[in-house]
Amino acid sequence: MSGPILVINPNSNPEVTAGLDRMLEAYRLQGGPEIECLTLAEGPFGIESQRDSDSVILPLARLVKSRQDAAAVVLACYSDPGIDACREATSAPVYGIQECSVLTALTRGERFGVIAIGQASVARHRRYMRRMGLIDRLAGERPLNLSVADTTKGGAVFDRMAEVGRELIGDGADVLILGCAGMVRHRQPLQEALGVEVIDPVQAAMGMALGRVLAG
Amino acid sequence: MSGPILVINPNSNPEVTAGLDRMLEAYRLQGGPEIECLTLAEGPFGIESQRDSDSVILPLARLVKSRQDAAAVVLACYSDPGIDACREATSAPVYGIQECSVLTALTRGERFGVIAIGQASVARHRRYMRRMGLIDRLAGERPLNLSVADTTKGGAVFDRMAEVGRELIGDGADVLILGCAGMVRHRQPLQEALGVEVIDPVQAAMGMALGRVLAG
Amino acid sequence: MSGPILVINPNSNPEVTAGLDRMLEAYRLQGGPEIECLTLAEGPFGIESQRDSDSVILPLARLVKSRQDAAAVVLACYSDPGIDACREATSAPVYGIQECSVLTALTRGERFGVIAIGQASVARHRRYMRRMGLIDRLAGERPLNLSVADTTKGGAVFDRMAEVGRELIGDGADVLILGCAGMVRHRQPLQEALGVEVIDPVQAAMGMALGRVLAG
Amino acid sequence: MSGPILVINPNSNPEVTAGLDRMLEAYRLQGGPEIECLTLAEGPFGIESQRDSDSVILPLARLVKSRQDAAAVVLACYSDPGIDACREATSAPVYGIQECSVLTALTRGERFGVIAIGQASVARHRRYMRRMGLIDRLAGERPLNLSVADTTKGGAVFDRMAEVGRELIGDGADVLILGCAGMVRHRQPLQEALGVEVIDPVQAAMGMALGRVLAG
Amino acid sequence: MSGPILVINPNSNPEVTAGLDRMLEAYRLQGGPEIECLTLAEGPFGIESQRDSDSVILPLARLVKSRQDAAAVVLACYSDPGIDACREATSAPVYGIQECSVLTALTRGERFGVIAIGQASVARHRRYMRRMGLIDRLAGERPLNLSVADTTKGGAVFDRMAEVGRELIGDGADVLILGCAGMVRHRQPLQEALGVEVIDPVQAAMGMALGRVLAG
Amino acid sequence: MSGPILVINPNSNPEVTAGLDRMLEAYRLQGGPEIECLTLAEGPFGIESQRDSDSVILPLARLVKSRQDAAAVVLACYSDPGIDACREATSAPVYGIQECSVLTALTRGERFGVIAIGQASVARHRRYMRRMGLIDRLAGERPLNLSVADTTKGGAVFDRMAEVGRELIGDGADVLILGCAGMVRHRQPLQEALGVEVIDPVQAAMGMALGRVLAG
Repeated sequence: MSGPILVINPNSNPEVTAGLDRMLEAYRLQGGPEIECLTLAEGPFGIESQRDSDSVILPLARLVKSRQDAAAVVLACYSDPGIDACREATSAPVYGIQECSVLTALTRGERFGVIAIGQASVARHRRYMRRMGLIDRLAGERPLNLSVADTTKGGAVFDRMAEVGRELIGDGADVLILGCAGMVRHRQPLQEALGVEVIDPVQAAMGMALGRVLAG
Repeated sequence: MSGPILVINPNSNPEVTAGLDRMLEAYRLQGGPEIECLTLAEGPFGIESQRDSDSVILPLARLVKSRQDAAAVVLACYSDPGIDACREATSAPVYGIQECSVLTALTRGERFGVIAIGQASVARHRRYMRRMGLIDRLAGERPLNLSVADTTKGGAVFDRMAEVGRELIGDGADVLILGCAGMVRHRQPLQEALGVEVIDPVQAAMGMALGRVLAG
Repeated sequence: MSGPILVINPNSNPEVTAGLDRMLEAYRLQGGPEIECLTLAEGPFGIESQRDSDSVILPLARLVKSRQDAAAVVLACYSDPGIDACREATSAPVYGIQECSVLTALTRGERFGVIAIGQASVARHRRYMRRMGLIDRLAGERPLNLSVADTTKGGAVFDRMAEVGRELIGDGADVLILGCAGMVRHRQPLQEALGVEVIDPVQAAMGMALGRVLAG
Repeated sequence: MSGPILVINPNSNPEVTAGLDRMLEAYRLQGGPEIECLTLAEGPFGIESQRDSDSVILPLARLVKSRQDAAAVVLACYSDPGIDACREATSAPVYGIQECSVLTALTRGERFGVIAIGQASVARHRRYMRRMGLIDRLAGERPLNLSVADTTKGGAVFDRMAEVGRELIGDGADVLILGCAGMVRHRQPLQEALGVEVIDPVQAAMGMALGRVLAG
Repeated sequence: MSGPILVINPNSNPEVTAGLDRMLEAYRLQGGPEIECLTLAEGPFGIESQRDSDSVILPLARLVKSRQDAAAVVLACYSDPGIDACREATSAPVYGIQECSVLTALTRGERFGVIAIGQASVARHRRYMRRMGLIDRLAGERPLNLSVADTTKGGAVFDRMAEVGRELIGDGADVLILGCAGMVRHRQPLQEALGVEVIDPVQAAMGMALGRVLAG
Repeated sequence: MSGPILVINPNSNPEVTAGLDRMLEAYRLQGGPEIECLTLAEGPFGIESQRDSDSVILPLARLVKSRQDAAAVVLACYSDPGIDACREATSAPVYGIQECSVLTALTRGERFGVIAIGQASVARHRRYMRRMGLIDRLAGERPLNLSVADTTKGGAVFDRMAEVGRELIGDGADVLILGCAGMVRHRQPLQEALGVEVIDPVQAAMGMALGRVLAG
């Protein structure tokens, strides 16, 4: 088996990386590729603005370039920052979690909805989905309008997610995407509460990365 | 871990199923899901026409319905026959290899090309890609114009695949898809000969299925 | 004049066929083609699920193949089941009533709305319209959420149709399609009540079939 | 039965109108609507430029407005001149032959090709097809680069049409449209020579108009 | 410097032309092109219907053809009447104010909304935007449902514009277009009231025309 | 009059900035806005790769943020690097030369072609045009396959541009875009040699910026 799958947290918050590490435990199988979670030391503590997102492109590309041993790379921020530069920096496949979550959603429903963290990211995501050539299958994207920090809290967050999820279903969505790298623990409960598949973007990207590595 | 991933060969040729079984060995990891390859007894010996493709829908859906233990289902024929009926028959995720190969290609290039077996399938595939809402990213699909049987043979087949691949690159493709379930052994050599990523559809679907099952 | 126009009711309910026969009386003109309405003996009593729809493909294709005398074929179920297989089975033109109703709607308005029988068919119809490459002109599709049986009843059905029609006009539709083969008697009254053209899909398909046969 | 179907030749060449009259004989059935072919006295002798096409809008709309007895109107020029103004001028359905030919082509193939008279009209037609929301299904449009007058001549014209038709098939078309009101006599021979359905736009529009009138 | 930029008011109301003349004062710079505002004598007093819009095509094209000295032409009616005929009539660039306002909006937001005068024009504008290939970026178009005359009045008009603007923002618009040639004085106040960029179509077209002329 | 229009050369080659300064002389009109050309000191000497393009985002955004006096900003590199971050950094309108050239091309032709410097940028530009929602109007993009340095040379460059331009016209383009900030001197001769409008992207952006500033 070739090198590890690198999962890069583009912000510099090590707790986020630790969370990724824990959630990806399920993908570490004997005989399968190693999964290595990295924190981007140069990243901001959280990525909320366009500037935050753009600020990590060069360090991400450098990090990716320095790890030619990687069998695949996952960029674990929903803005897919630096995806083009990282793809230029390595011949290994590079997976953005937004891209993979949208592609995965298409296998599970007719139209997808996206639960975003904040209003500001909605237009940014729309541009990206249009760039993918896929926006015709978007039922809608709606923000929680909570800060990234809030999303790490408990019940109130879940209730708000369920509320937004129901609005998206009203918009025509029959599959939902969590538009953030750190909401995986809400995936299953939300799925049960709403009765539609809910996709975590990191899991979606990890699945595609793992599959690609096993293809040889 | 939940039930197995079922990989169903919708034709009744057991050698094709055996081939699938061998090629999927790499995806059988300790701690990961079981992968079970099935032959559709009611299927035709090969699927070449629309009628062939439609003839397997009901038996496929019955088979899928009878296996509620499955954690995921992969339909291993490039026409994705019966995908809607199978999705209706089970709450497990169902993956068509055409759908998954196209989605996977979008992570690896700007425009994809498809190497089809025969001319007759090109219009059928176009309808399907338009249905996906993704045809804008198709650079072209071109047929080998060999029979399914021929594709199991050696060097001449490879040479023809490389020729068609080069034409597709000329059409603007920077990633290629093998438009058939039985060409995986040509993937790596073709990739090396042509210098662009080549995607095997069964591997693409298996990657997405495995990733989904591990997501829990 | 060549052979008859076959209108095939893909369900096995002879009353539905008889209704088709009566409504098509207006298209039987002296010097024009014969119109022959057939019941698909092998069909289910009604077509509501994906499975129902798929179950008629093979018998439909067989029936079409056995009638090489037909000048044209109309498939009288809004799901257009088996349209690809039927087109493969004959060189005569084959018309699906969904396809023809949508095409006809484009001549009568800027955006069309579809009154569907049930929620379950909405996603199926959307896939089909996307496959047609025409979904940009869909204002919306909304279900009556009545059973097929209910649609044969009186005033309450009409009131519900008018209610859904008004919602679709609110969605931006300026022409409406009856998304079922058996609602023709509501066409004219609905048109008068709502002030927009209402299209019956069987009439739309019959018009295109008749026109094609007269073209020689 | 209500009033006649008006077929309006927007140029002032009465021979063209006479030709329309003869070719539509097949659509005059006992019990069916009357078909009345009119010459637009104010029209130019032929319509080749944008100006020619625009010059007939007002007289066409006036003529249509003056004939509120019409059950349907067919505009027999491939540019569909004045279609919006005519639709505003009457509540009767108005059919443009370009629009109807394209819609009809979608029932007979995956991608259509258009045989145009001259280069100048290609961009105009593309704008119109984009306006229809249908240009994704256009394989290509290629001009004969003959004058309208030439198209009334014999064998050389046919040979050129076959040549252009073959190029369009090479572009991916599996159904062809004659992009002019006066080429119907070449339809059948071209179809036989090329092996794909060839659609005459006047026949396509007449079929939709007749079907609409019979719907009541 | 070459000839003047002609700004043609296609209606025959000289007050509208005078208003255009005043609002374009800001674009008359020393060393820059002359800007000449013309009234189309043959135009109707106002353009509200499709017929009104079509009625000006020929005189507009004649006027444009007679002014081969023009460096650029701006058609100052939001329906962009006669744009194709005018482009055929001159080799100078011809700018329609609807076209330019939409193109300009794309530089200032993710999705645009259009404030139309009346309901009747909404479908006409949609056809035009689809023809442009741009309708995917339309968030919505909503009518004031005031007459053109009303739009020249004061506060009540502004309040209605703000109301419609807020509805469009609710539809997802982050930039708005004034869908009429005579509302420029509301642009700045509306922008301030709503907090999104508001585009006047005449200014948008004049900017593109001026830029083109200065390019030499 | 408000502040200046900033034209930022994102590479650090002062000769390029000087060239921009000279070519924009025509846009400096008495009474109009000041035009100030800046070199991005932190930029690479030339922008050829994705990494080059991404490397200027943060310094560009900083520069833009530091100049809140600007009435408008033009980013003078065809990759439109940092356009989103710059738009976030200022409330002044920000114009990318690729975006503006494409929008401008739509006013001058039915389908546009792009003459790119190198093959590597073609996919990057396609992603960007798809993101704009406009790729349906692209006839093709073809590279000169010369280095940026070569493009500053004489006759051989022009001959190659004319050759590529003719290929693009063969692809269906009726208007061409120079896909680089430094080719303006070839615009007029190319236009004369090829007989179609040729658009310089810096001029296109400057026109839109100037028009916007004059709008007040």
